[in-house]
Amino acid sequence: MRVFSSLKYLLCGACAGFLMPGVMAQETHRFDEQTLSTVHALSATALESDLAYELTRSLTTEIGPRLAATEQEARARDWAVAKLKALGFENVRVESFDMDLWTRGASVFEEAAITAPFPQHLHATSLGGAAATPGDGLEAEVVFFASYDDLLAFDDAADALAGKLVFINDRMVASRTGEGYGWANRKRSRAWFHAEDRGAVGVLIRSVGTSSHRFAHTGMMSRLDERTAVIPALAVSAPDADQIERIHAAGETLRIRLQTSAGWRGEATSGNVIAEVVGAEAPEEIVIIGAHLDSWDNGTGALDDGAGVGIVTAAAKLIMDSGQRPRRTIRVVLFGAEEVGLIGARAYAKARSEDGTLANHIIGSESDFGAREVWRLTSNVGAQAHSFFDAMHVQMQHLGITRGPNSGGGGPDMLPLQELGMPVARLNQNGEDYFEYHHTPNDTFDKIVPAEMAQNVAAWTMFTWFLADSELTFR
Amino acid sequence: MRVFSSLKYLLCGACAGFLMPGVMAQETHRFDEQTLSTVHALSATALESDLAYELTRSLTTEIGPRLAATEQEARARDWAVAKLKALGFENVRVESFDMDLWTRGASVFEEAAITAPFPQHLHATSLGGAAATPGDGLEAEVVFFASYDDLLAFDDAADALAGKLVFINDRMVASRTGEGYGWANRKRSRAWFHAEDRGAVGVLIRSVGTSSHRFAHTGMMSRLDERTAVIPALAVSAPDADQIERIHAAGETLRIRLQTSAGWRGEATSGNVIAEVVGAEAPEEIVIIGAHLDSWDNGTGALDDGAGVGIVTAAAKLIMDSGQRPRRTIRVVLFGAEEVGLIGARAYAKARSEDGTLANHIIGSESDFGAREVWRLTSNVGAQAHSFFDAMHVQMQHLGITRGPNSGGGGPDMLPLQELGMPVARLNQNGEDYFEYHHTPNDTFDKIVPAEMAQNVAAWTMFTWFLADSELTFR
Repeated sequence: MRVFSSLKYLLCGACAGFLMPGVMAQETHRFDEQTLSTVHALSATALESDLAYELTRSLTTEIGPRLAATEQEARARDWAVAKLKALGFENVRVESFDMDLWTRGASVFEEAAITAPFPQHLHATSLGGAAATPGDGLEAEVVFFASYDDLLAFDDAADALAGKLVFINDRMVASRTGEGYGWANRKRSRAWFHAEDRGAVGVLIRSVGTSSHRFAHTGMMSRLDERTAVIPALAVSAPDADQIERIHAAGETLRIRLQTSAGWRGEATSGNVIAEVVGAEAPEEIVIIGAHLDSWDNGTGALDDGAGVGIVTAAAKLIMDSGQRPRRTIRVVLFGAEEVGLIGARAYAKARSEDGTLANHIIGSESDFGAREVWRLTSNVGAQAHSFFDAMHVQMQHLGITRGPNSGGGGPDMLPLQELGMPVARLNQNGEDYFEYHHTPNDTFDKIVPAEMAQNVAAWTMFTWFLADSELTFR
Repeated sequence: MRVFSSLKYLLCGACAGFLMPGVMAQETHRFDEQTLSTVHALSATALESDLAYELTRSLTTEIGPRLAATEQEARARDWAVAKLKALGFENVRVESFDMDLWTRGASVFEEAAITAPFPQHLHATSLGGAAATPGDGLEAEVVFFASYDDLLAFDDAADALAGKLVFINDRMVASRTGEGYGWANRKRSRAWFHAEDRGAVGVLIRSVGTSSHRFAHTGMMSRLDERTAVIPALAVSAPDADQIERIHAAGETLRIRLQTSAGWRGEATSGNVIAEVVGAEAPEEIVIIGAHLDSWDNGTGALDDGAGVGIVTAAAKLIMDSGQRPRRTIRVVLFGAEEVGLIGARAYAKARSEDGTLANHIIGSESDFGAREVWRLTSNVGAQAHSFFDAMHVQMQHLGITRGPNSGGGGPDMLPLQELGMPVARLNQNGEDYFEYHHTPNDTFDKIVPAEMAQNVAAWTMFTWFLADSELTFR
């Protein structure tokens, strides 16, 4: 299908012009004309395409929230299979897995209120994995911790916080990279057992996220091996955390009432949806591009991660429609159960270890950071591939993309594969307002800017073509 | 107390330099040096003061939401009386009045969901005055109206919408003046009876307001004389209205389920809180500066109108503390029950008509548009006072304030007095993001910028002093 394939990998040394495919990492990598023609045509087509936007519209409109292992997530898998088949993908299939189901209970709204000294309703939401209150709620005195570290440093006697409700007030700062998120997440992930071990009856945290809006930010708590929380754990919105902080600063003792029926509901089924554009020359070699199909239950999962589903699916589809086919297989994986602990990604990695195709995974990347513009290309690949990535970046500069370091990950669902040795790369998106919406009811389709999403698809078509049409190894 | 009072009103004609107090509106008005010294000292003090901010902090933290005629509004009156007395105001009192109480019911959260074709939860809130659904809710097919005008133009037979749920999709556009609000409010105020008269079982509107966040915007519906709604009427957030619009645009018929216990609860008591800085020379002459103490139940009423309470109270207090006293009385009125139909303002105007002091109300103004900076001075006064306002404006230019037209109102609670002949003026605030927060859970204290609020107080101290220390009539 392609021409000039033997001329594809031109490496131009600082002092030599001869051909030497696939090695000499410190040399400048040059793509052949056919490759450049293909990727720039893909980029131009993608910038005019609304396919990603329309896929995300369809998913969020027709399915909406899709919490892992729920009926809604199953409907999302059916949606994905139907869409991927209709778009002409090959080998469309679902790989199911069983997991523990956690849900919030009857309503996405849970009750929380300051009862003393100044009664006031709070906007709160249970954290994933948290337990229910007693049926008629619980009310307790608040112990205020300015930070998670203050809780860690607190008296660790088993009754040090007996009967008390822990409140933790750490703030997250917005950034383009979103890198404050991991640090801020410590309280969300781990405060519950530090509180439980000190006798507390519940945990309340200032929402992770940077929003000043009155939405509480949900998200998963960590398990400690098989141990799960026996106390309720909720986040309150930033304005409500401010209210608690103001009352505490005035020297008053707060009492708060909570009522939630959150909890674990036994085993249920989730799954990963897989589809392929089979490679022309080395179909057994896999470039995996992913996103996750599940979302939190409070928004409609538009930015997290309906956008990623749209972006990677559209990128693979535009390549499929280009009239050319790369030498390697492009495998689109729409993971299940990402939000609740990368459960789909772990199931995928385990299955590939078992079926012996792990080593065939040449490189992988995920789109899972909203729909704002891609601003940086990072890689985590062997030295022999650095110049290849540098040269890829040069071709992507017209999209406003800079070259980032050769470190870091390929997105959350790539982590289990990366841990098993798969190289990864990432197209970093501008995250400066991602945590305004993330994991709240506010994660809805209207937050996506079509032109920014199209720029993502353009970057992904180029990125995916370069990687899938290469003979290079990235390990 | 003041010096040079006989020299206060210097009018400098285009061709004459002689003194001529209080007349010749087309002439340039000049203030005496003592007045200028006083107002600029007040402005400088106000710009450094956090009194308004602290008052608003206290009201929203210690009381929070304060729906008209509820126990929370009564607590706010107690708070106001205590604060005003502690600040040294004179003649602090409450004028109570009875009114019909409407409440949302047990929770600020009400249930709304699309049931077909794509089941999804909606963020919705009853409009003030709306009725309850049956106890177990109602579910009906939606009739989609792109605009309120489309509903008006629809078949007006008594069964034209029998059994149907009306949805109206008008959008409001943001502006500095907020002037799209009145137009957008038509659907909120009046759609219910157009729907009822055509047999509809409920009304749902795209939220008034400009927010793209997932908060529904509440607000009062109009009464038709003594007629009140017998059907439920709710607003959905903009993202949820988008969802309804997308499904409708796809040619699908929607069904929506609603459940709310909103309704009228019989007669209850509200009241206006009044406090004064008694005038030095003409204490019977009243310059009224107002704000309203009640708020909607979903936010904490920080911008609407805790900010106004803080601003006018602080302005009067700073004048009181200046060591000087204007010739007229400054009357601070913190109105009750503004949100639900200017009931406090009407009670105040009626009481003044009855006690014969209406004519003593020289001029009035209200702060009720958030806490962003004042950018314009408007007036609605007799021609003899135009040059006075123009000259006031010149002195306020250092605050970034422009001169607006001699038309319009003095704020919502000034309307009943204005209708009875009282002149009004207004310090227009920047409203470009006011309707992002207004009448939603998002109206909280963190949205206030201290420096912008201090600029308001500076403007109000100058404005209030100029008007209260004048001998001019404004009718």
